[in-house]
Amino acid sequence: MNNESDQGVPASSNVRGAEYPRIHDDLRVTFRLEAPTAQRVQVQPGGDENGLGAGPFDMARDAAGVWRVTTPPVVPGLHYYWLLVDGVAVNDPASETYFGYGKQTSCVEVPEEGVDFYAIQDVPHGEVRARWYFAQATGAWRRAYVYTPPDYDTAGSRRYPVLYLQHGMGEDERGWTAQGRANFILDNLIAAGRAAPMILVMDSGYAMPREAGAGFGPSFIQQISEAFSKLALQDLIPMIDATYRTLAHREQRAIAGLSMGARQALHTGLSHTDTFAWIGAFSGPVLESLDLQTAYSGLFRDAEAFNRQVRLLWLSAGSVETRIDQGLQRLHEALDQMGIAHEIYRSAGTAHEWQTWRRSLHAFAPRLFRA
Amino acid sequence: MNNESDQGVPASSNVRGAEYPRIHDDLRVTFRLEAPTAQRVQVQPGGDENGLGAGPFDMARDAAGVWRVTTPPVVPGLHYYWLLVDGVAVNDPASETYFGYGKQTSCVEVPEEGVDFYAIQDVPHGEVRARWYFAQATGAWRRAYVYTPPDYDTAGSRRYPVLYLQHGMGEDERGWTAQGRANFILDNLIAAGRAAPMILVMDSGYAMPREAGAGFGPSFIQQISEAFSKLALQDLIPMIDATYRTLAHREQRAIAGLSMGARQALHTGLSHTDTFAWIGAFSGPVLESLDLQTAYSGLFRDAEAFNRQVRLLWLSAGSVETRIDQGLQRLHEALDQMGIAHEIYRSAGTAHEWQTWRRSLHAFAPRLFRA
Repeated sequence: MNNESDQGVPASSNVRGAEYPRIHDDLRVTFRLEAPTAQRVQVQPGGDENGLGAGPFDMARDAAGVWRVTTPPVVPGLHYYWLLVDGVAVNDPASETYFGYGKQTSCVEVPEEGVDFYAIQDVPHGEVRARWYFAQATGAWRRAYVYTPPDYDTAGSRRYPVLYLQHGMGEDERGWTAQGRANFILDNLIAAGRAAPMILVMDSGYAMPREAGAGFGPSFIQQISEAFSKLALQDLIPMIDATYRTLAHREQRAIAGLSMGARQALHTGLSHTDTFAWIGAFSGPVLESLDLQTAYSGLFRDAEAFNRQVRLLWLSAGSVETRIDQGLQRLHEALDQMGIAHEIYRSAGTAHEWQTWRRSLHAFAPRLFRA
Repeated sequence: MNNESDQGVPASSNVRGAEYPRIHDDLRVTFRLEAPTAQRVQVQPGGDENGLGAGPFDMARDAAGVWRVTTPPVVPGLHYYWLLVDGVAVNDPASETYFGYGKQTSCVEVPEEGVDFYAIQDVPHGEVRARWYFAQATGAWRRAYVYTPPDYDTAGSRRYPVLYLQHGMGEDERGWTAQGRANFILDNLIAAGRAAPMILVMDSGYAMPREAGAGFGPSFIQQISEAFSKLALQDLIPMIDATYRTLAHREQRAIAGLSMGARQALHTGLSHTDTFAWIGAFSGPVLESLDLQTAYSGLFRDAEAFNRQVRLLWLSAGSVETRIDQGLQRLHEALDQMGIAHEIYRSAGTAHEWQTWRRSLHAFAPRLFRA
């Protein structure tokens, strides 16, 4: 320990044995890369609202060709980042990788003081199962991740409700467990008796047929929502209900998602209230532009029917993802005025990042499948 | 398609939508990186015996700052590689990452003509389950990967034999499924009636207690073998037998591994023939130096007892990992001279790479758990 940047502890997101990135007591983060032949090395946080700050952070080279930088104190949570080696964005070899931005990307886990709801604890643990299936909707094999609760294999014929849980743009079926730690969140809630033992189904939100062109922008979001709805109804839900001991009934089936996945969850859930009774949207950009008179075939126009049919409409945002948070507040008021029952949740001090979505799942799951 | 390097097809190891690396009909591989600010970009194959060739391969920059190179024809299989950006080894953002060399590393999958034993096929599929458990041997939570065969959840009270399967140095519990495609190999063998439905257990071979210093070299290999044996006997096997519907008997329990994992499998299996009856070592560097008079408490000295106790001793190597292959041939002769029953398998044209180990598993698994 010859250097202040050597203090603190290795991030839990590091690969086995990697000493950097290191998290200091005051949540400054030290990054390190051995790169004697590089001319310039920087840390580039992912996206505009990244809890690491704005970046890029210039790293300083020592005589041995080791580059280091220590950031100012950062926001707790899991933050995407890259290293810029002579301007080229690459992964930090010291970090585990997480699928985001359409590729494998480095993340640093910054702990939140006193918070252990997503930590692995000494409680019974469920499994995260990779399940392969052929989807007619896409004409291709797919892999879904399925969380089964701790007693699944020992509970005989017991059947469970199911929450379908969608990731965000550029992520995939691995996101909710790798980044979101959804399995540990459920393990802990179930052990505390705070959530019903349930199955989580996490599939890729990318379900366009192979021949489809895939651009971006609003029409892409619409297309991808419709494609996922088709996949869910035609292939995924039937496969899950045929393969696992589910309670195959709308009252025991929920859908939620984050960001792009929030749009998909609302589109799929609110267009198929005969299939889903519990619907959650975390950091859904759709919220700012939702036309309550026309959306989802006018579903919101008859509040009484809506409130009878939809057991839970649950909406969340991080307080510092300003645009989405403000959209959520406006939607909240509009839904109240129309008499549409719903709940909102605001994650204090977090942005369009996984800490918002971990907290959202932790607040949402206990509300599901109640009498 | 304005360029010869644009021909061929995207590698199946690419991330969703990535067009490069591309595999040509003659198994040349084109790599591509957009890096306008870099001064030099190269492709660096992993290790001395990498099927991509010796490298590094210099990439050529076009006017837009896109770098490309096409290799000579390469060996089929999955090959680790990095890109050297101004001399710094980094991952290719177009590649899925695979845990090897102690970090997340790029790989390119080069198909082998007419070979589909490790492809996903239209057969019933087992699951790959992530299972967390606390190990007394290490004082820490661990994650094992467990393959359950296709009928596991529908077969009522049926119990299954178990193959413990260890990765190589620098890899982890994900290797045998992500790189090795062990689940698809078993799915296909089971569907064809060529292997008994079995459970695969894939844990990390790194099982040193937290306080242990971990150097490298022969004593490290010895330590890590003993540490894994302790973990397996004390924690892993009891957990597996308590959690899954196993046939918890030596005649229904096998252990195998590759490279460092071969050493661990031999050490664990041959030191505990009361626990394991079927033992496999794929590309085991131990083979060149094994002293058959003293190894494993002199187990080989009594051939009759050995042959009665050990149902299968199965050894393999790739024909072009010369040192290990020659060691295997010498061991084969020595075992024959001593009357020790065993089988050997030689993977033609492959080196110390996953294609050798996929083929080894494909040849080994059908030999297990026969009457």
